Formats: sequence, structure tokens, C-alpha cells
Amino acid sequence: MTAFGEHDASLPELFTDAAKTALADAGVGPGEVEALFLGNSFGGEMEGQSHLGPLVASYLGVPGIPVSRIEDACASSSNAFRQAVRAVETGRHEVVLVGGVERTSAATGRDTAERTRTFGAAADGRYEQPVGVTFPGVFALVSRRSVHDGLYDEREMASVAVKNHANGSMNPRAHLRNEIAVDDVLDSPVVASPLKLYDCCPFTDGASAAVVTTPEYAASLRDDPVTVRAVEQATGRTPLHDKPDLTELDTVERAGQRAYEAAGLTPADVDVLEAHDCFTSAEIMATEALGFFEKGSGGRAAAEGLTALDGVLPVNPSGGLKSKGHPVGATGVAQIVEITEQLRGESGERRVADARIGMTQNLGGDFGTCVVSLLEAAA
Amino acid sequence: MTAFGEHDASLPELFTDAAKTALADAGVGPGEVEALFLGNSFGGEMEGQSHLGPLVASYLGVPGIPVSRIEDACASSSNAFRQAVRAVETGRHEVVLVGGVERTSAATGRDTAERTRTFGAAADGRYEQPVGVTFPGVFALVSRRSVHDGLYDEREMASVAVKNHANGSMNPRAHLRNEIAVDDVLDSPVVASPLKLYDCCPFTDGASAAVVTTPEYAASLRDDPVTVRAVEQATGRTPLHDKPDLTELDTVERAGQRAYEAAGLTPADVDVLEAHDCFTSAEIMATEALGFFEKGSGGRAAAEGLTALDGVLPVNPSGGLKSKGHPVGATGVAQIVEITEQLRGESGERRVADARIGMTQNLGGDFGTCVVSLLEAAA
Repeated sequence: MTAFGEHDASLPELFTDAAKTALADAGVGPGEVEALFLGNSFGGEMEGQSHLGPLVASYLGVPGIPVSRIEDACASSSNAFRQAVRAVETGRHEVVLVGGVERTSAATGRDTAERTRTFGAAADGRYEQPVGVTFPGVFALVSRRSVHDGLYDEREMASVAVKNHANGSMNPRAHLRNEIAVDDVLDSPVVASPLKLYDCCPFTDGASAAVVTTPEYAASLRDDPVTVRAVEQATGRTPLHDKPDLTELDTVERAGQRAYEAAGLTPADVDVLEAHDCFTSAEIMATEALGFFEKGSGGRAAAEGLTALDGVLPVNPSGGLKSKGHPVGATGVAQIVEITEQLRGESGERRVADARIGMTQNLGGDFGTCVVSLLEAAA
Repeated sequence: MTAFGEHDASLPELFTDAAKTALADAGVGPGEVEALFLGNSFGGEMEGQSHLGPLVASYLGVPGIPVSRIEDACASSSNAFRQAVRAVETGRHEVVLVGGVERTSAATGRDTAERTRTFGAAADGRYEQPVGVTFPGVFALVSRRSVHDGLYDEREMASVAVKNHANGSMNPRAHLRNEIAVDDVLDSPVVASPLKLYDCCPFTDGASAAVVTTPEYAASLRDDPVTVRAVEQATGRTPLHDKPDLTELDTVERAGQRAYEAAGLTPADVDVLEAHDCFTSAEIMATEALGFFEKGSGGRAAAEGLTALDGVLPVNPSGGLKSKGHPVGATGVAQIVEITEQLRGESGERRVADARIGMTQNLGGDFGTCVVSLLEAAA
């Protein structure tokens, strides 16, 4: 992946940077790439560039190969990863490149209101958009109800931000590398109550990429390839008001269950998790929906350090969306990159000790899409 | 598919109409749908609605199933069809719904300049967009060079429009059902020389859908299921100025070759073709690139009636993009719908006699993406 932050490069240039890093890491040349799946959420809306597939293939020097752009809001590149894994599973392709790219920062030349509106297009156009519910608003509705019900509190939410900034401060590719304290979060300006500024991830630019291949070819390339045990997607009922219970992340639960079942694993097997913490409360709720903590105990778990680097389940060692940043279409595969490096023991001072099984959880839109992957370290 | 024309419905509503028609035609209930692939080019840019996957699943009453939105410009839903076919081939899913939806007409509330600019986002953002090359411009560059080289002329181009309007006049779902004469085309206003107004397809709204399943399950549902012999994609070098020869549709040629090879068929086996005639010259060049006519003879073939309904190779019996209309993200699967009905003998007065093998060819952007399918009638 590229460093996450502000970038002036075009989308194809940015993606090519990440792709070349991934190819070099895997030890394969561009000419070996047989197909490409690319996640991007709003190149058209934000920068007037859609139809990225053939452009990135041309930039990579492999015009001709099949390429599809996948758009599933913030879960675009994890869903692209799902397609890439399937393409190899079928035996149709041996080497598939997958990744994502997005620019959402001020470097796009768009002001905050425009960018917020562009993000908002991923919410329901009949009911949510017309009343002005942007994404902080969507997550505030869910968080407000949860806090009201006593499922977690604002101090516990803040502890997620503190942890993720601490992790991100050790990640050279993270966007926000400053450490913060609980009071910094609680004292920061309210964005949409109960979400304060430091409960929210930043607008970020960046790209990510990974090479997916067969176990046999992978073994010939490296002695530490990571195995994809499962990658599963679920959607959820939208818009928000049709959900039976605002405090249930049923989309995440369903995607998690499918992944555990496909891999033959349980939450107890997972050593490290990259979760979708677009807002701090989203991380708390994801750790519950994925079966790591009982409903109503995820916030306390975070506050007590159970999800810290040295906790029972380290969550977001990369810094997560909160600190590493959230270039929407690039986020899913960036989680794959982090878990891959963790399972290969390459994460430096933020390394999770003895991690064998890693999980990624990537959410899209108003809880409409979730993709969960389970990866395993080489024996 | 829905009727093509101007629609006031939202994208999820419009797609649901097509999806229900497809499900009823196949004899399967929404509850049997295990996954969905949806083509849409610019719901975000045109109407502020991205992340369509979970929305359409919710509208169909099947929230929860995996859904991906595919965006590959005008080839979005044919590429979605490719993914749907692969998902069934792998054995992972038995019943997959696929389709596309788009609104591009004045019913969107956007003026012609805005809509032209939105389409233009599918061209290269560095070189083509800044100099004002819109899609009529892109195709005019290619057509002008071809006419200069004597490969076809403007009268032959006009004959494609005349044929497709004649076919479309018999298609109750076509957008433009008026018959026209060669002089109407030649006398119509110049859009981008040598393309006149009647060389260009209209701005259209519509949706299309198809059910993809295993041969075994298909046989239990109907006695005339259509078999997918191949569906293959290729990309091409972009932007346009990097192509070695403007008059070679190498992307189409490559996709066609892959499809013939995958199906074990040749051009001589094809009885009917739905081609991507966004502009009349594009149809001429597609019939050459797909191996039906020698380079430089496709225009004459059209003018002499070889591609008419009673010709040696009927092309665009539906009326094509030119007359049936071109709701971008819906076009690929609408071609599949037409060929399916042709192979089942359900096309009324525009039926191609004794059609056993049908082909679709769907182009995206500045010749960047092409998807070609080969379908076969039940024995």
C-alpha cells in the first residue's frame, strides 16, 4: 500500500504505486497478472474519472487483461478481494491482482461539504439523503441509541480512539500519527452527538494492492505466503429505519458467521483483527457482532485494554481507519495488507506476538455491506 | 427488461421491475436468489445514489445476500453477467441474479451538457477530458480516420441507422420506434463529423435482468433454457492516442477471440448478433473485429443488407443501442435478454429464423473494455 494521507497523484498513478509494491513483494512481474479487480467508490463523483479498469491496466503495462471496477461504498476493495479469490479458486486464473484506490482529502480540490455529500450518496436516496443524514449522522443515530440503552458509553468510545492512535503512531504509513488521550476525545468538537471529532476517521487518500495466487504458486514465490481461509460478504436491510433494532449489526454478524463457517474456525481462533472503525463505536459493535465479546461488553473490553496490542484480541494494530486513515475504496485491501504483514511478523514495534489467524472486517454504507476475511500464517 | 425510454422511477425501483420480470420468466422466487451482480455506470454522478447493492437487495425482499455493483462504463452489466456466470460455474451458487440499471435521459433533471460530461468521465482524465473530447468526439476521431482511409463511408454508416430503426420499430420495448431513411441520417445535424445526429444512440433510462443457474436446475424450470457457451472480457490500451492504429478495434477482437476459443466456435457458427452500436460506425467496426467481415467490407455489408433481419448475419434485431436505446449500465444484459428471446423464438415479427447460436458484444468507454458472450438455444 501507499502511505495514507494527502496525495496529489491521479487515481491510476496512485494505484500503480501500490500495485508495483505488491508485485515486488510477491515476486511476480506485471506480465504475469492475468486479471485485476479494482475497488473504487467515487472516482467519478469526486474527480470526474470513472471506468478505471482499462486505465490502470494500461498504466501497469498490461492492457488487455480482464479488469472490473467494484463499487460497494467503503467495502469496495474487500469485495474486489472476494472476487479475486474466487477467480483463483475456479482455476481460471493463476495470478490475480486486486486492490483499491481513492482520494477523499482536500487535495481533491473539493471542500468538506462537497466531500461529505459525495460520501452521503452511499446512503438511501429516498429517505436518508433528503433529511440531511450524512455518515456521521448515520453512525450517530446508532451510537446514540446504543449509549441510551447502556451498551457502551462515550468514555469507552474514546478509549478506542486512544488505542488506535497509539497503534497508528507506530505505523509509518498511517495518516494521523499523533497520540491522544481520552480527554482529548471527550473535549473535541461534537460532530454528531455522541460522536466527537476524535471519534471520526479522517478524509484520506491512498491505494492498496495484493497478489492472489494458488497455494502451489505462492509456495514457489515465498516461504511465508498467507493463506486465505475465507472471504465472505453479506448485505443488510437498508435504509436504517427498516432495521428491526438499530443496535444490532446484523450485516456484520452474518458476514462473520459465513466466514467462520467457510473457514471452519471460531472467534477463539482469531489472534488479530483489523476492524472497520470509521467511528469509534463501529469498532466496539463489530467486536461484539463478530463474537469476540458479548453484546454490551465490547466498550468495556476496549477501555480495559483487551483490544490493545498486548490484549487478548488486538484490534486495529495498523491504527485502523481512525489513525491510519480511510481512503474509502482502498480500505478493504489495506486491512488485508496489514494482516498479511502481521502474520509474516513484519509489523515492527506494532507486531502482534504469535499471530497465526487474522481477520479483517470491512463495512460499507449505512450498514448495507460487510465483507469478512480470515487469513492464516504459513506453518 | 423494462421498456427503454424515459422513466421517473428511482434506480432501485427500476431495477426491481426488470428483476421481477426475469424471476417470473425463469420461474424462480426472489427467495431462491443466492447472489446478485449489478451493473451501473453513474448512479452517483447522475443522481447522487451509489452503493446500490444492498438497496436493490432490500427492494427485492432479499436483504442479506452478497451483492456487488460493477462499473465498467457502458460494459458494466455484461461484466456483471461474466461474474454471475463464474459464480455459478464455481458451484458456490445455484441461482444468481444479474442485471443493470441506469437513467441518462432528461428525466434525471440534468441538462444535455451535464449528462455529456458525466459520460465523459469514462474517458481518460489527463488527456482526453481536458481537451473536451466527449464520447461523440472519441468515436468521431476513429470514424473520421476510417472514412479517410476508405474503410467505410457516411452512406454505409447511415444504412446501419436505417436498419436498426427498422428493427426497433418492431420492438415494443425500444426507445425510438420511428423508421428512417438514409437521407434522414445524412441530412441530420452534425454532432461530431462524420457523426450526424442519427448516427448516435439516444440518452435512455431502463433496466435489464437475467437469472443464471446450473444446466440441471435450468432444465427443471423450463424446456427451453439458453446455455452460456462463453462470456469473456478484454481491456484495451487507453487513452486513444496510445493505440497503434485508430481503425483497429483490438479490444473487441481480443474479447471475441477469447469467447470463440472458450466456446469452441467460429464466426461461421453465429446466427444472430447484438452489437454495441452506440454510433453507427461502431457496429460496422465490431462486425469486422469479430470476424464476420473483412476489414473494410463491413460498411458495404450493412449497406447491402447482409446484416438485416433476413441477411446472412442479422445484427441488432432488437434495434440496438441506436433505436432500442442505451441506458448505459443496463445495456449489456439487455443484449443478453434479446439474444435469449431470439434463441427461444419469442421475438415476434423481428425474429431471426432458425437462430441456434447468438452473440453479444458490449463496449465500454474509449474502447477500453469489451465483453463478448456466446449463447446457445436448447436442443
